[in-house]
Amino acid sequence: MNLSDTISAISTPFGEGGISVLRLSGNKSFDIIENIFFKDPGRKKRINIAETPSHTIHFGYLFDESNLVDEVLISVFKKPNSYTGEDTIEISSHGGVLVTQKILALTLKTGARHAEPGEFTKRAFLNKRLDLSQAEAVADLIKAKTESAHESSLKQLEGSLSSYISSVRQEIIDATSLIELELDFSEENLEFISKDKFKKKIETLTDKLKDIISSYLSGKIIREGINLVITGRTNSGKSSLFNQLLKSDRAIVSDISGTTRDYLQENIIINGILFNLIDTAGIRKSTNLIETEGIKRSFQKIEEADFILYLIDSSSTDELINSEIEFFKNKFKSEKSLPVFTKNDIKDLKDKNGITISIFNDASIYKLKNKITERIRESTVQKSSSEIVLTNLRHKLCLENVVTTLRQVIDSLDKKMSGEFISVDLRSALSYLGEITGEVTNEEILNNIFSKFCIGK
Amino acid sequence: MNLSDTISAISTPFGEGGISVLRLSGNKSFDIIENIFFKDPGRKKRINIAETPSHTIHFGYLFDESNLVDEVLISVFKKPNSYTGEDTIEISSHGGVLVTQKILALTLKTGARHAEPGEFTKRAFLNKRLDLSQAEAVADLIKAKTESAHESSLKQLEGSLSSYISSVRQEIIDATSLIELELDFSEENLEFISKDKFKKKIETLTDKLKDIISSYLSGKIIREGINLVITGRTNSGKSSLFNQLLKSDRAIVSDISGTTRDYLQENIIINGILFNLIDTAGIRKSTNLIETEGIKRSFQKIEEADFILYLIDSSSTDELINSEIEFFKNKFKSEKSLPVFTKNDIKDLKDKNGITISIFNDASIYKLKNKITERIRESTVQKSSSEIVLTNLRHKLCLENVVTTLRQVIDSLDKKMSGEFISVDLRSALSYLGEITGEVTNEEILNNIFSKFCIGK
Repeated sequence: MNLSDTISAISTPFGEGGISVLRLSGNKSFDIIENIFFKDPGRKKRINIAETPSHTIHFGYLFDESNLVDEVLISVFKKPNSYTGEDTIEISSHGGVLVTQKILALTLKTGARHAEPGEFTKRAFLNKRLDLSQAEAVADLIKAKTESAHESSLKQLEGSLSSYISSVRQEIIDATSLIELELDFSEENLEFISKDKFKKKIETLTDKLKDIISSYLSGKIIREGINLVITGRTNSGKSSLFNQLLKSDRAIVSDISGTTRDYLQENIIINGILFNLIDTAGIRKSTNLIETEGIKRSFQKIEEADFILYLIDSSSTDELINSEIEFFKNKFKSEKSLPVFTKNDIKDLKDKNGITISIFNDASIYKLKNKITERIRESTVQKSSSEIVLTNLRHKLCLENVVTTLRQVIDSLDKKMSGEFISVDLRSALSYLGEITGEVTNEEILNNIFSKFCIGK
Repeated sequence: MNLSDTISAISTPFGEGGISVLRLSGNKSFDIIENIFFKDPGRKKRINIAETPSHTIHFGYLFDESNLVDEVLISVFKKPNSYTGEDTIEISSHGGVLVTQKILALTLKTGARHAEPGEFTKRAFLNKRLDLSQAEAVADLIKAKTESAHESSLKQLEGSLSSYISSVRQEIIDATSLIELELDFSEENLEFISKDKFKKKIETLTDKLKDIISSYLSGKIIREGINLVITGRTNSGKSSLFNQLLKSDRAIVSDISGTTRDYLQENIIINGILFNLIDTAGIRKSTNLIETEGIKRSFQKIEEADFILYLIDSSSTDELINSEIEFFKNKFKSEKSLPVFTKNDIKDLKDKNGITISIFNDASIYKLKNKITERIRESTVQKSSSEIVLTNLRHKLCLENVVTTLRQVIDSLDKKMSGEFISVDLRSALSYLGEITGEVTNEEILNNIFSKFCIGK
């Protein structure tokens, strides 16, 4: 990526709406707009951006040579007072798919390059408009699907993680200074801090970091949701339960075994937790090639599941039910699965260490929902007492690296090793911390982060 | 709908993107924003819109009481210089689904009402910012999927239809004046224009209008596309052709009859024409309930089709092929269907008054595409020589009413009926013309038009 390029992208979601916004950022933004934008449909009056104040809006017409492309509003942002810190134009056009694409094509034709995903935010980071964890919070905020995801990403955008990291950094810098000062005066054999006190200090820091790290599991739930897979034998009522939970007729339901072939996936929020609810093809030996392909995909979804509902038809024979329970126990880990006895309206089965439901009984569905969220909360309980919730795997990995190096520091202290070793580890811990906020970085990390953004941000 | 309400809606398409825009229009827009928008995260500095120039942009923070909702940019538009002609605020926020919904909820909580579909444009119309045919062009522009749809809706937005209607109106007004002048002087038995000349004038006008009306069919194609249904017996290669035309693996393909159950539908542009390509369940007697449901839906799609490709498997026996050709001829109208002999790689069938293809032979698919568009163009050829292309059914119906009343005028002239009758018909024609641009209108017409808009426009 080249910072001297002028980049262009549609920044609003894809689709039909009232308004679409195209963003143009870089040195040539103003030249491009002076070239294609006219204040009148007769192409007599151009705009002179040099004489136009920043943060102003102007109505006019975009022309591709002599062809009118759209009536638009343009917003002018002069550097450094823009999202990216560069000269920026936002073109607000009619929100159609084709018309927006035509405007994009027009900017590309007249000097801009199509922006990479997240490239506007990357430039904002490189121009120090925000740090790396804040840039990541922008992506998380956009993807937020629950109240808690919204709240935690906003906090991070406002700098809560950044300021925490910066306080930890300061503690490590102070420790490093002490150790390195001792190294400077090593011939005099001075001790600026008792090694016990120093060790205690590092241990306290490590515990605090571990606390933050342990908030990650709930962070993952906040951000991405739980993969909840509904599985079981054919005709055990999976699609009926799927529809019931979604309160819609999403899946075709029939009495015939093997109705569902392709798996179906929908988002649903139960008791404030986001789930990716997945309905799968029923498990059985099938000679139907299409169904067999579906069953193969069921097993794949079971592999990837965070939590599994295994449906057992209560109206089956006792023998079959017992063999189903046996199969369930052997096949699934108890901490991430729950047997559900369905069709309880046909035959009322006492709860066999699972839960009994009928889709015609709202109370039983309500009970099932509560059971699911209770189990999820149990298995992913937030053991952290910290204010900050880690929602980003990269941050977690960085902090784990910090903890590992701090443990090496403690180990070196125990082994009474030379200050040089300790200093090297402390500096390495600092570097890992710096990766979170982007003080230490490399092109690979940046590309990895920004490639996950949507285009136009 | 109440014009004194302040209305609010998300104006960008639904989904995740870099930016979302919420539009707020009406008397209370500025009060609402002064209440929820702060220039600092500490909620110390509010904005004073009275002292803020129109068409300016401001960075700040939206708060729902003490809870931060998002960092945003707001754009200020003071009446009458806004899209609606009213005081308007546009809030540009992070483009997530949840964050945008929260901002919408915040505006609704603090004094705005959720806008009806098209209500912003309706207000623009009522405040005379654009006429009715231009308002409709806005909706068409947003929905435009082809170059020609884009071009014709932009033309209409710029007023090409409006000015044409206004010229026709003027001609009828002139004619009406002449007739009514004669009525005023009826006792003197003056003739201001020879009845033959007058009749000729009305006839010329009627012909011109009929010419415009005949442009409508191509207008429908421009706007909505052609429903192109692929049908035929099971395993005749429908899904393979569907995938080949789309250049994707959209439909599951197998050798097994009855693979496709639910019909699949995708948009595709072939030689500049927009098609809704529909793959259906193959036709056969089936005992499978799910497949039978699919076949029922196939027949429904055939009913609704603008054009049908009936696929016949070339590798079948001659007897079967002949019975298929017979079935095709009896079942489908020749002007809106085409038999396609598939799997020509297995058995090379000479073209039997249809077209032979193999999905492994790109040249044959190319030939098929050209054949389809050629047939579509033949059956819907634009007989109109006018510059204007009618793309809106409402406009067509209005113009048809104008033509009907003008024919009555001609009829009355032939029967040498009194000028009073002629005058009434001419005034009725004027009224129908006025409906197009909205000079004559009623709440029902308006609701019908604007309810088809997206929310937020």
